[in-house]
Amino acid sequence: MLINCVAYENGTRLAEIPVEDISDYLLKPDCFVWVALFNPDAQELDQMQEEFNLHELAVEDARHGHQRPKIEEYGDSVFAVMHQLEFHEGEYSLSEICVFLGHNYVLSVRHRSQQNFLAVRERCEREPGLLKQGTSFVFYALMDAVVDRYFPIMDRLESGLDKIEEQIFAKGAARANIVHLYGLKRKATLLKHATSPLMEVAMKLSGNRGPELCANSRHYFRDVFDHLIRINASIDNIRETIDTAIQVNLSMVTIEESEVNKKLAAWAGIFAIATALAGIWGMNFKNMPELQWNYGYPSALLAISGAAGFLYWRFKRAGWL
Amino acid sequence: MLINCVAYENGTRLAEIPVEDISDYLLKPDCFVWVALFNPDAQELDQMQEEFNLHELAVEDARHGHQRPKIEEYGDSVFAVMHQLEFHEGEYSLSEICVFLGHNYVLSVRHRSQQNFLAVRERCEREPGLLKQGTSFVFYALMDAVVDRYFPIMDRLESGLDKIEEQIFAKGAARANIVHLYGLKRKATLLKHATSPLMEVAMKLSGNRGPELCANSRHYFRDVFDHLIRINASIDNIRETIDTAIQVNLSMVTIEESEVNKKLAAWAGIFAIATALAGIWGMNFKNMPELQWNYGYPSALLAISGAAGFLYWRFKRAGWL
Amino acid sequence: MLINCVAYENGTRLAEIPVEDISDYLLKPDCFVWVALFNPDAQELDQMQEEFNLHELAVEDARHGHQRPKIEEYGDSVFAVMHQLEFHEGEYSLSEICVFLGHNYVLSVRHRSQQNFLAVRERCEREPGLLKQGTSFVFYALMDAVVDRYFPIMDRLESGLDKIEEQIFAKGAARANIVHLYGLKRKATLLKHATSPLMEVAMKLSGNRGPELCANSRHYFRDVFDHLIRINASIDNIRETIDTAIQVNLSMVTIEESEVNKKLAAWAGIFAIATALAGIWGMNFKNMPELQWNYGYPSALLAISGAAGFLYWRFKRAGWL
Amino acid sequence: MLINCVAYENGTRLAEIPVEDISDYLLKPDCFVWVALFNPDAQELDQMQEEFNLHELAVEDARHGHQRPKIEEYGDSVFAVMHQLEFHEGEYSLSEICVFLGHNYVLSVRHRSQQNFLAVRERCEREPGLLKQGTSFVFYALMDAVVDRYFPIMDRLESGLDKIEEQIFAKGAARANIVHLYGLKRKATLLKHATSPLMEVAMKLSGNRGPELCANSRHYFRDVFDHLIRINASIDNIRETIDTAIQVNLSMVTIEESEVNKKLAAWAGIFAIATALAGIWGMNFKNMPELQWNYGYPSALLAISGAAGFLYWRFKRAGWL
Amino acid sequence: MLINCVAYENGTRLAEIPVEDISDYLLKPDCFVWVALFNPDAQELDQMQEEFNLHELAVEDARHGHQRPKIEEYGDSVFAVMHQLEFHEGEYSLSEICVFLGHNYVLSVRHRSQQNFLAVRERCEREPGLLKQGTSFVFYALMDAVVDRYFPIMDRLESGLDKIEEQIFAKGAARANIVHLYGLKRKATLLKHATSPLMEVAMKLSGNRGPELCANSRHYFRDVFDHLIRINASIDNIRETIDTAIQVNLSMVTIEESEVNKKLAAWAGIFAIATALAGIWGMNFKNMPELQWNYGYPSALLAISGAAGFLYWRFKRAGWL
Repeated sequence: MLINCVAYENGTRLAEIPVEDISDYLLKPDCFVWVALFNPDAQELDQMQEEFNLHELAVEDARHGHQRPKIEEYGDSVFAVMHQLEFHEGEYSLSEICVFLGHNYVLSVRHRSQQNFLAVRERCEREPGLLKQGTSFVFYALMDAVVDRYFPIMDRLESGLDKIEEQIFAKGAARANIVHLYGLKRKATLLKHATSPLMEVAMKLSGNRGPELCANSRHYFRDVFDHLIRINASIDNIRETIDTAIQVNLSMVTIEESEVNKKLAAWAGIFAIATALAGIWGMNFKNMPELQWNYGYPSALLAISGAAGFLYWRFKRAGWL
Repeated sequence: MLINCVAYENGTRLAEIPVEDISDYLLKPDCFVWVALFNPDAQELDQMQEEFNLHELAVEDARHGHQRPKIEEYGDSVFAVMHQLEFHEGEYSLSEICVFLGHNYVLSVRHRSQQNFLAVRERCEREPGLLKQGTSFVFYALMDAVVDRYFPIMDRLESGLDKIEEQIFAKGAARANIVHLYGLKRKATLLKHATSPLMEVAMKLSGNRGPELCANSRHYFRDVFDHLIRINASIDNIRETIDTAIQVNLSMVTIEESEVNKKLAAWAGIFAIATALAGIWGMNFKNMPELQWNYGYPSALLAISGAAGFLYWRFKRAGWL
Repeated sequence: MLINCVAYENGTRLAEIPVEDISDYLLKPDCFVWVALFNPDAQELDQMQEEFNLHELAVEDARHGHQRPKIEEYGDSVFAVMHQLEFHEGEYSLSEICVFLGHNYVLSVRHRSQQNFLAVRERCEREPGLLKQGTSFVFYALMDAVVDRYFPIMDRLESGLDKIEEQIFAKGAARANIVHLYGLKRKATLLKHATSPLMEVAMKLSGNRGPELCANSRHYFRDVFDHLIRINASIDNIRETIDTAIQVNLSMVTIEESEVNKKLAAWAGIFAIATALAGIWGMNFKNMPELQWNYGYPSALLAISGAAGFLYWRFKRAGWL
Repeated sequence: MLINCVAYENGTRLAEIPVEDISDYLLKPDCFVWVALFNPDAQELDQMQEEFNLHELAVEDARHGHQRPKIEEYGDSVFAVMHQLEFHEGEYSLSEICVFLGHNYVLSVRHRSQQNFLAVRERCEREPGLLKQGTSFVFYALMDAVVDRYFPIMDRLESGLDKIEEQIFAKGAARANIVHLYGLKRKATLLKHATSPLMEVAMKLSGNRGPELCANSRHYFRDVFDHLIRINASIDNIRETIDTAIQVNLSMVTIEESEVNKKLAAWAGIFAIATALAGIWGMNFKNMPELQWNYGYPSALLAISGAAGFLYWRFKRAGWL
Repeated sequence: MLINCVAYENGTRLAEIPVEDISDYLLKPDCFVWVALFNPDAQELDQMQEEFNLHELAVEDARHGHQRPKIEEYGDSVFAVMHQLEFHEGEYSLSEICVFLGHNYVLSVRHRSQQNFLAVRERCEREPGLLKQGTSFVFYALMDAVVDRYFPIMDRLESGLDKIEEQIFAKGAARANIVHLYGLKRKATLLKHATSPLMEVAMKLSGNRGPELCANSRHYFRDVFDHLIRINASIDNIRETIDTAIQVNLSMVTIEESEVNKKLAAWAGIFAIATALAGIWGMNFKNMPELQWNYGYPSALLAISGAAGFLYWRFKRAGWL
């Protein structure tokens, strides 16, 4: 589905143009065309391939989707893939943005994504001074928007981790903690796999050996690169903390179990001594003088509760109870 | 066993030729010969070595098999080894493909593999425009086919992991989970060892310092390289998730054990108090007034069940039962 | 908020100057201006951007804060970000220092930090011989001060770890240990994330490929780099030791649990034999001759305590009690 | 002890020569001398140092032994150390091979090794065409022999691991498994430490920046390098699998323990209810009507076994028994 | 404290000279001065700085100590720091050696160290042929001595590990093992932190890009580098083995615990059945015919011991007892 097809001259929007006229505008100097597609069908992509003379392999990638974030040069044109993570009803879903870039055209192809890039176009059109830099600035603006959308996801991970940390030493929370930690680890891994290869892309674009086409926006790509480094450092931090937390959680379970075991041992001991004593005075020997005493029974109760009490006191002191 | 021996000219199939005529066709310009062998005996390989003038060390490798995926240059010819994983009756088996490549010949040697490359030959012959690139395109097509066959294996691993994840927090599933996780880890390691060195091969072929012979198909090898990076990233992801899952599984066992322990402690306590009380009233002291009461027995039963009930309620509230 | 705005000539302080006069001083040879801001508002930063002709992206970073430690060149000027960790009431908080550096100006912007850099200015003014090196020496002095403030934090971590190590093999300390170890790990990670990227900055500044502007203070930056390497090695050491300590702590819990289990088993056995024997002599068979013996009861007590004592001795010898 | 001292010309064996004549042969063109020593005493090494003009530091290394695998250039001569693992009576022992290499001499010094290199000499003498390459081919042949001897050791490790894997999920095998896994890990580490630095040696020899002296045998060293990569990949695989197996084994122990705990809990419950009921009817209250019933006793037995049976059925259903 | 101050000419000792005359000797060609200080006070260092014209930052480092091992070039002079580990009464302490190196002077400053370098001076003076190489040979000799002192420490670690391994599978040794393993890990980490940065120093000195001053002793530094690689490989090996041993130890504790649990379960079962049976025959039902039998009691004892014996046999067969 075609979203937009607009021509720009010297950083200023000329007009929404029909797809057939693209090739005319491509001939004009200082002019570039920016096309946005969403879930395109085969025919739309074929048309674009013809208009912009795109490389077969790049179009294949855009058609099939399921690429990893990357950047590839085909002659003096550039093909890039970026991933977006979108949060719907408690689940993350992955969507893909493909960008074809020439010195006088930008073609962005959005797959499955719910989030469009209209705001990016508006931002670019509001700053004709920067848009004058050409298509590489458009590419930067798209990438910047994609990267900015990682931050709230990362924040959600961090606050999820904070919540778990609050109760990691709480009794009885071990099962819930481990479930959440595992889920968090999976989400962090998902985010890592989206951002980490994109970081390589941004590094290439911000360095000296990036595509010629993007050289004049290098400072801007370095800014994006910086954001990605920050995100990556945070994810690594989160992942490492999760690993430690999983270990700590296991320790806590074992500690709790050992405390329960001590309690069990203590109470078992207390009852066992009572039962053993009662058993002894329940024996049927004929000649058990204390059984005949007037105060035999109360003394026995006293002895039993005395022994139990003594044990209780010992265990209490030892911290088992 | 000789599977095929076909000559091509300018990307078009000329004819199936006898092995003896190979040297004639090698002399023609714009012409190359593509030979496919399966489990060749020593004599067949010797014949090929003579026809194509192959390097002794490369032929040795193809003869013995059991090489790891690699690419080697001998002068202006290239020798490559790739691994295939084949799934038969629940077990993975490894097979080897050796490829000898010169500017006017391709020799592929298949060891133990059940899967042939007839479809690759057909694909190449359907696209004479690309086959015109020469033997490097044939090499690309073979490699692409090998790599494409990794994807279903990877998918099977992923769905295996998904199945385990569904029941990783289920009670009583720990033993089955750990058995499956270990099996999965082994399979993922097997796949990793097939794809990871092949990735290095593809990187070499898609970069600037790869063999001269393959330079004109560089974009295509980059495509294969991309697939391999994706596969590798997925395997790493799977392996890492398995490691976390093994740890989580251990935590779950410990948590379950601690829950069982608590239950055990609780019931032991309840019965112990009943037994202790019954034991006390089973003592044979002469002077135990309550034994003579009319309602002594029901009161005792009440006391016993009261004590047991009280404990039950306490344990229930504490979450032990 | 403007803290200072001072002009220097040949390493000597000229005068505190009003912001409006900055541009005049920038024109004089051998003269530079050093401005310090604290939590600046938008207007102050805009003014500085105008006076010093700072790059838009760098000013953006200084305005928003939340950057990671880094150094960036914009033409022949340099922009750097450093992190400080400050300890208030048991909690660490992160603050940010941004430095803009040109051949004739230094602008330092402090965010949220409680610790100012007046001592740095004093140190510089006390050593005009070194300050003559120009703005790069000021930059060094700022960085040196930031790095020096990491040492007491690191020392606090190390002494925290020492305290835990003293009682890591103590009985009953497992829960407290794991809580402290987890807290320590978190703090060490925080410090690591502040110092590790700063180390890259210092490496760049002390090497041959750092900014031209800082080349004449290279030996000094190497000194800072050295300190950072030392801090980093210590943190890595601390983190690794914490990981080992967490594992050891888990082992200790399990060992303690197993010792408790043995004690439990031993006492359970001792009482169980007493109870079983008492139960046997409490049976109501008519024909139990020993019940009629004169010394039946004492013999039974002797038998019971003998059996219990024998078990006790066995368990004692086996180290279970 | 001198094993051999033979002169070669154009790849053909000339004669066994006395040590004193070595210098004469070294003067002839197209001629080289190949000397093999075993556990040499100080004097023999001194003599060799004089004859071949060896560098003091290299001779020191050969004298003392206990070097790690390495290759060093001294001017246009080369000194290399390799390790052999030998299996005697269930134990691995390490032996060392030092090789001194010049354009017209090879000196191999064997320390403590039981395995000689006579087969290598025979192989070389059978292939004069290859031996014509000069001393670097001799070096290759020695290295190839050393590397070939790693394969059976690796196979033994792999089959040892296979044996453990067969019973890793078997009940009661945990202790034997962990003992074997630890032993295997140690052996794998030993092998790793022998092959891993040798791999660096082979990489150097097979690349463009290796010693000039060995340049013409580069293809051959690449073959050795390949073998070493394969061995190393296998060892890494083994080591990683051992690590996973140790973790899995721990999980299995914990799972088994939890199963035992459940059984214990179940039987304890069954007996406890029987004992508690029997205790109740063993109380001495006067007014316990059921004691007087004709069928009181059978009813009680029925009640007791009914309760026990009910519990048994519950535990059976829950999988505890 | 000044230890020595000696002038050398062409590798031969001239004379012990007073500090004031140093500058005279520095002017002579083929002459160098070698000064050794121990725990110098500020004044001594100032004097040396003046005599040898040392760089301020290097002197600062030597004054304060607490540097990590490193090498730094200041113009054509070199400053190096090395660490020594000394073993006193069961504890390791760290000491520091600073070396200042110019083409005609060596100044070594020893901090806190108990071990002097008189033997190094003697060794150098015994070999004038080598000492002729100049100050770089002195530097080599010092470094070689420092590195040689690491070997006994490493050996002590290895034999410590061997001792633990002997009893890692012994029953009841788990607590002692874990204490020793933790201590060993700490010591290995200490040694690692001393040798690992020194290895970088040695690598620099033995390579092509080391300081010009040390170029002619490159072969000698390569020898030291080799020793350090060996030490480092051994330490890594030790550390890795410790990690595995900690894991194995945890497994052993868990296995032992599970064995104890089984024993506990078995004996609890045996006594429980005896107690339950005795309890049943201790009930007070009127109509319990077996109580009246002449051989009731022996039959009951038989039944009880039969049941207990049967259980005992079952548990024995299952390996629980």
